[in-house]
Amino acid sequence: MGFDPDSAVFRVHEGGKLSLSSTLPLTDRESLSLAYTPGVAEVCSAIATDETLARTYTWRSRLVAVVSDGTAVLGLGNIGPAAALPVMEGKAALFREFAGLNAIPIVLDTTDTDAIIDTVERIAPSFGGINLEDISAPRCFEVEERLRERLSIPVFHDDQHGTAIVVLAALRNAAAITGRSLGDLRVVVSGAGAAGVACTKILLAAGIGDIAVADSKGVLHADRPDLTSIKAEIAATTNTLGLTGSLVSALDGADVFLGLSAGRVDEDAVRKMASNAIIFALANPNPEVDPEVAHRHAAIVATGRSDYPNQINNVLAFPGVFKGAFDAGARAITESMKLAAATALSEVVAGALAPDYIVPTPFDARVAPAVATAVARQAVADGVADGP
Amino acid sequence: MGFDPDSAVFRVHEGGKLSLSSTLPLTDRESLSLAYTPGVAEVCSAIATDETLARTYTWRSRLVAVVSDGTAVLGLGNIGPAAALPVMEGKAALFREFAGLNAIPIVLDTTDTDAIIDTVERIAPSFGGINLEDISAPRCFEVEERLRERLSIPVFHDDQHGTAIVVLAALRNAAAITGRSLGDLRVVVSGAGAAGVACTKILLAAGIGDIAVADSKGVLHADRPDLTSIKAEIAATTNTLGLTGSLVSALDGADVFLGLSAGRVDEDAVRKMASNAIIFALANPNPEVDPEVAHRHAAIVATGRSDYPNQINNVLAFPGVFKGAFDAGARAITESMKLAAATALSEVVAGALAPDYIVPTPFDARVAPAVATAVARQAVADGVADGP
Repeated sequence: MGFDPDSAVFRVHEGGKLSLSSTLPLTDRESLSLAYTPGVAEVCSAIATDETLARTYTWRSRLVAVVSDGTAVLGLGNIGPAAALPVMEGKAALFREFAGLNAIPIVLDTTDTDAIIDTVERIAPSFGGINLEDISAPRCFEVEERLRERLSIPVFHDDQHGTAIVVLAALRNAAAITGRSLGDLRVVVSGAGAAGVACTKILLAAGIGDIAVADSKGVLHADRPDLTSIKAEIAATTNTLGLTGSLVSALDGADVFLGLSAGRVDEDAVRKMASNAIIFALANPNPEVDPEVAHRHAAIVATGRSDYPNQINNVLAFPGVFKGAFDAGARAITESMKLAAATALSEVVAGALAPDYIVPTPFDARVAPAVATAVARQAVADGVADGP
Repeated sequence: MGFDPDSAVFRVHEGGKLSLSSTLPLTDRESLSLAYTPGVAEVCSAIATDETLARTYTWRSRLVAVVSDGTAVLGLGNIGPAAALPVMEGKAALFREFAGLNAIPIVLDTTDTDAIIDTVERIAPSFGGINLEDISAPRCFEVEERLRERLSIPVFHDDQHGTAIVVLAALRNAAAITGRSLGDLRVVVSGAGAAGVACTKILLAAGIGDIAVADSKGVLHADRPDLTSIKAEIAATTNTLGLTGSLVSALDGADVFLGLSAGRVDEDAVRKMASNAIIFALANPNPEVDPEVAHRHAAIVATGRSDYPNQINNVLAFPGVFKGAFDAGARAITESMKLAAATALSEVVAGALAPDYIVPTPFDARVAPAVATAVARQAVADGVADGP
């Protein structure tokens, strides 16, 4: 990788990837007097009297802020807000392309947890929802949790929950193909960052039988003295077998390997997994287990890459999640809305399941509407939305 | 004014007035891999190494944040961020329509000066420029001043400087028509809020002979004990005649009345102005001096209304000012860039001047390019830009 202004990548990025337009032409005095002064004053006055009218008469109710501090961007790490901007522009473009929503990148010149929270809270009246993106762990957990408490609009850290929703959908279908229920599965999660924590939580909520979570120092358990508060919480709610060793030792007899870090796992470790094993090796661009190796020992293999089948791609989740939340006028995204999203996503391909087809492809036009419908319905059921 | 969902005003506002689109279609794996992962990582890495590349490869370098706390919206006053949003959406639409720029409304859930400044500073890496809007005086002065110190992108409070630029352009042409130079004019300004202060400052910088500024309690002078710091600064730099009375008494013999508040001025006061008087009565929708009354006593009359000639409308300034600043890559908007904008604006109609044609109409397509060219050139001359 380097800077080559004549390459296709740099050429498509010239001038950025987003463009804003007015929904009505402002080409004469009459249109200007409706959309701007003096006409706009009537709309302002109406909203000042009844703020719920902002949902109908401003763009914010279908507008997502894609918020990042640039600390955990792709595989690049802490590259800062300016360098993170092309990713956030791309994310905003995906919201438009896959769900017809408006989304705006907001990159922050601070990595302080309190400052991030205060800043997002103060700009929140501009938006209908907050998509947190590429904020490093463990700050990302506190940022999301406290914003969820403070704001009455959807807040969703995509690196956590987008991944978790797609992983659960894929695992549900993988279990079905291999003739097991989720409750039967023994899962080993590699990685206790944003995605590892969120996947573990949603798998627990979905009724997975047993989960062991490992970070770079081995399996999380209650006696480890080095755990952050979030890892301690994970240790307390997982690992029913009381494992204390390495990731590799935990894989002995496991049904599922879920790779959410770049830590490589070699063939000897994978070989000891249970029969009909399921391997999700999601690190990009280099999966934790080489896909060819994985296929020698597993019934079902998924990666994060677009050039292999079964791509676990967040774009299968976040557009529909926000569209559903906005369609319903949801004030939050609940845990059961995420579970409903996963179920709806898995059901899109339920009639055509195969070992190399456990999730839809990213361009499957059925996905976002199906996820949105399920999310909107669950929002109303959960009492966080009044409906369309 | 009331809430009538079937009226034209409310119907054009349904769903809001802005729409975001992707500049390239994301309809297949190849386009996705260029605009998003994995291709985007090359662009991120390049910007992380050399942040100046963000000017070329992100949308921020031509993106304006239209920032308001909703405290001084139109004639409505402090209506809060949600109710202010339709105005900010309209403003953003004007940036697109008149200068081809992207602009985004950011309405803030705080009216605290420090909090506004901190928030804008933290989101600033997302944007190429900050247009402050409808923030009440005197906080608006400190907010702008401190943001100008902290940020290395253009910061421009339109209620101050947009108005000031158009007023100076119009007054320059009005003086020319009536055969006077700016240095000969004795001006009375009614209003010491955002627009009054900024107009006074730009008129002083342009060489106006004498200015008396009045607030609701009369002419500002150094012996008044009730002045805010900004009013004290204005008192110290104006009123060379040492007036101490009312606005009406100051108008006796004045050449120019510049109305920037809603305080009505009756015919008896206007009658005492100098011959060939110039009356700019800019309050909306009710000018300080009734236009018919004004015409009986003044050679030239301007208002803020679109249904009279000589409309003093900020849209003649801010699109070209930001376009010029962005074209040049300016790190700030200097006082001389504002003067250059006013001169360029006045010159657009210099060949066709008439008492009812001292400024171009808002839809004159020559305006924004002419202003932008002058602003960009002055930015380079001032050393705040390296050029296109």
